[in-house]
Amino acid sequence: MTLPLASRPRNAEALLTALRGELPDAVLTIGPEATVPYAADRSGSHAEGAPLAVVHAAHADHVRTTLRHADALRIPVVPRGAGTGLSGGANAGTGSVVIDLSRMNRILELNPQDQLAVVEPGVITADLDRAAGEFGLRYAPDPASAALSTVGGNIATNAGGLRCAKYGVTRDAVLGLDVVLADGTPVRTGRRTVKGVTGYDLTALLTGSEGTLGVITAATVRLRPVPETTVTVAASFDTFAEGAEAVSALIAARIEPAMAELLDGPVLAAVDEAQATDLRSRGGALLLLQCDGRAAAAEAELAVPLLRDRAATVEITDDPTEADRLLAARRLALPSLERLGRVLIEDIAVPRARLAEAVREITAAGERHGVRIFTFAHAADGNLHPILVVDPDLPGIPDPAWRAAGDIFTAALRLGGTLTGEHGVGTLKQQWLGAELGPAQHALQRRLKAAFDPHGTLNPGKAL
Amino acid sequence: MTLPLASRPRNAEALLTALRGELPDAVLTIGPEATVPYAADRSGSHAEGAPLAVVHAAHADHVRTTLRHADALRIPVVPRGAGTGLSGGANAGTGSVVIDLSRMNRILELNPQDQLAVVEPGVITADLDRAAGEFGLRYAPDPASAALSTVGGNIATNAGGLRCAKYGVTRDAVLGLDVVLADGTPVRTGRRTVKGVTGYDLTALLTGSEGTLGVITAATVRLRPVPETTVTVAASFDTFAEGAEAVSALIAARIEPAMAELLDGPVLAAVDEAQATDLRSRGGALLLLQCDGRAAAAEAELAVPLLRDRAATVEITDDPTEADRLLAARRLALPSLERLGRVLIEDIAVPRARLAEAVREITAAGERHGVRIFTFAHAADGNLHPILVVDPDLPGIPDPAWRAAGDIFTAALRLGGTLTGEHGVGTLKQQWLGAELGPAQHALQRRLKAAFDPHGTLNPGKAL
Repeated sequence: MTLPLASRPRNAEALLTALRGELPDAVLTIGPEATVPYAADRSGSHAEGAPLAVVHAAHADHVRTTLRHADALRIPVVPRGAGTGLSGGANAGTGSVVIDLSRMNRILELNPQDQLAVVEPGVITADLDRAAGEFGLRYAPDPASAALSTVGGNIATNAGGLRCAKYGVTRDAVLGLDVVLADGTPVRTGRRTVKGVTGYDLTALLTGSEGTLGVITAATVRLRPVPETTVTVAASFDTFAEGAEAVSALIAARIEPAMAELLDGPVLAAVDEAQATDLRSRGGALLLLQCDGRAAAAEAELAVPLLRDRAATVEITDDPTEADRLLAARRLALPSLERLGRVLIEDIAVPRARLAEAVREITAAGERHGVRIFTFAHAADGNLHPILVVDPDLPGIPDPAWRAAGDIFTAALRLGGTLTGEHGVGTLKQQWLGAELGPAQHALQRRLKAAFDPHGTLNPGKAL
Repeated sequence: MTLPLASRPRNAEALLTALRGELPDAVLTIGPEATVPYAADRSGSHAEGAPLAVVHAAHADHVRTTLRHADALRIPVVPRGAGTGLSGGANAGTGSVVIDLSRMNRILELNPQDQLAVVEPGVITADLDRAAGEFGLRYAPDPASAALSTVGGNIATNAGGLRCAKYGVTRDAVLGLDVVLADGTPVRTGRRTVKGVTGYDLTALLTGSEGTLGVITAATVRLRPVPETTVTVAASFDTFAEGAEAVSALIAARIEPAMAELLDGPVLAAVDEAQATDLRSRGGALLLLQCDGRAAAAEAELAVPLLRDRAATVEITDDPTEADRLLAARRLALPSLERLGRVLIEDIAVPRARLAEAVREITAAGERHGVRIFTFAHAADGNLHPILVVDPDLPGIPDPAWRAAGDIFTAALRLGGTLTGEHGVGTLKQQWLGAELGPAQHALQRRLKAAFDPHGTLNPGKAL
């Protein structure tokens, strides 16, 4: 798939010469000061070395030019948004070229009548949401990184967030894509209509493909009405298992929470320590629930007695300031953990009914390997984030953390779940990928990659 | 991709010998009486000749055996559910083998806690919905054929229905698939969790692929709570354009209708003629709207004044019997049209804001080619069904109907829409496919097909 290493330096020179000749000066940056930061994302891992050059694409033509030459010269290309990924998917090492899409940050169209937007990939997710808000609409996917991460990066990882159980993940919001294929060919997938079944669904396939099938240069995304009413409920439970059971009871009562965040005891203790709050004394788990839309009050009214049956304390409010106070524990969880060391944010999903078992497995893995692990969950969709806190003086991902993470992934699969609910495989989860996909599907996925990218130019070593 | 025709008869004999040896007698049927019905679906088109044999698969092993031999011998395989397709996708002609999956009709698991079901592909869609109903859940996709069509067929075409604008299409309900690839290899895609981003999304890719990438032998599908309350509204408008504008006004008011069926004047006149009703005299378009869930009454209350501003008459009810009476026009539309001749059901989608223009184009196409066309629309998602009524004595699809349909597809693309909202490309829309996909995407889709099915065994000549 790639040329022998011996021929690479000559090809690298040829690529830089071609790009210097065809790209505007301001677009191309070369040299370690400019390129070293591109070796790492926010996962705690980094690539070996640093990329050859960074193309700060300002136009789809810059993407096409770069790919056309890189593919011909067999130089790996790593597309990148804001670099907020948590699985190493955008890390660019020796001999690669980065296409940084953060300058392509225009909202090209915002169409309230058809409830859609057309955006360049570098638009910050929260900026799109804010722009839609002027029309009473919003972009539903809400990864925790929304204030920093880009729509293109969110599409590349099929990002999730807090409100997915009710409003869907990024894939559910993407109607169509403009992508540049590995050889520089532009393709437009999908459509502007809500429905449509012409051809294979390349839009869904590209979403979550971590830049290994094409480089996104524009996206048509669906917008949804902002719910007019939100009711917030906070409930403390003696144990995480009781909190998880309460969420199951809500779902069995056919309540569709817009948010159901469940924090475990160690998270509560860490928040208490950092923020001088008093959460842990109320119980070993805290559920933060929101119901929204025109049925919010009716849903909350149904939820509260179900929670009271199981919880130590229940608070409810439809006042935004009071809601902010209740939600502070979730908002402050990560900053509080960051005071204890360097955080490695993990991400598994299990069938909802197995949440409590998953947390037991996570706790056991931490104890087994001597790693401090703190867990919060998007409980309505069974998505757990175990946060591993490691010594900040140790570089990369220390061995015990790797081993604990490995046990957690194995447990997720054993519980009928998945390695990654919303962060992606990147480089970090490669080792467990085969166990989830099985050999036949893994081989099929590789054939599919080759159909898009026969020379393996696009983000090699990621996702698969 | 396929062997020269001269070698086919010998291969056909070899295949039949292999299947006779390895499949139970009751599974394999040969001979024109058994195979001729498989040349046609419900599109009005049929394949040339009839298939060699029909494998009535009762188990995934029968599918694997058939595919393994057929692929080795380069014999085309046509998977089939209930044969209710409307685009020729399941039509099987000379030299092919059909895998009929309708005997694989067991619901393998119905899990109310995780709100999912695992089913064999031959389960009738309405049967799944009914079984889920015992737990207060439902299978949301509701194609008009639900009482006859199978879940596997619905997945193969990514079927839609009346409530998709609020509850999504079939793709949104499929979590994972068991498929047999062209060479007989079984693969399990997707997961049982709500979220998950491991590997490329083959589940989404297979959904809507019309049996050209693999044969589905089981599906894990999402179930949703049955809404407790439904409010039905019927509104008559002077013109279709006013009805379409009213739907836009509802959506701008951030109402999310569970159903918004818009019938044009010719449909109303045909219902009146067949059923002795009096719909046409009230206006040139009828909107049948449903709001459901805990906010149904609040949404309907918001909707009614918006409709009264534009409509000649507005009726509203939350009584199921009265709702049935209001919905009779929609239910009786197709039977009423069938009294006028043979119906060919078309299917385009346009951006919601272009609905009225689309109906003008449809009417003009009918007049231009002397074809009677009647249109109803799933208005909230811009999906229109122009019904072409042709002389029942003419076989197949008469030329003027083809030409009118061609004009309609061209108009759909010009309006920013798609050739097919929910029925699929099959054989009938091949001719216009390139215009929607563009040459680069079309070529990419063919490479993708080859990555799954290198010998072109699976349902050749369909979908792409």
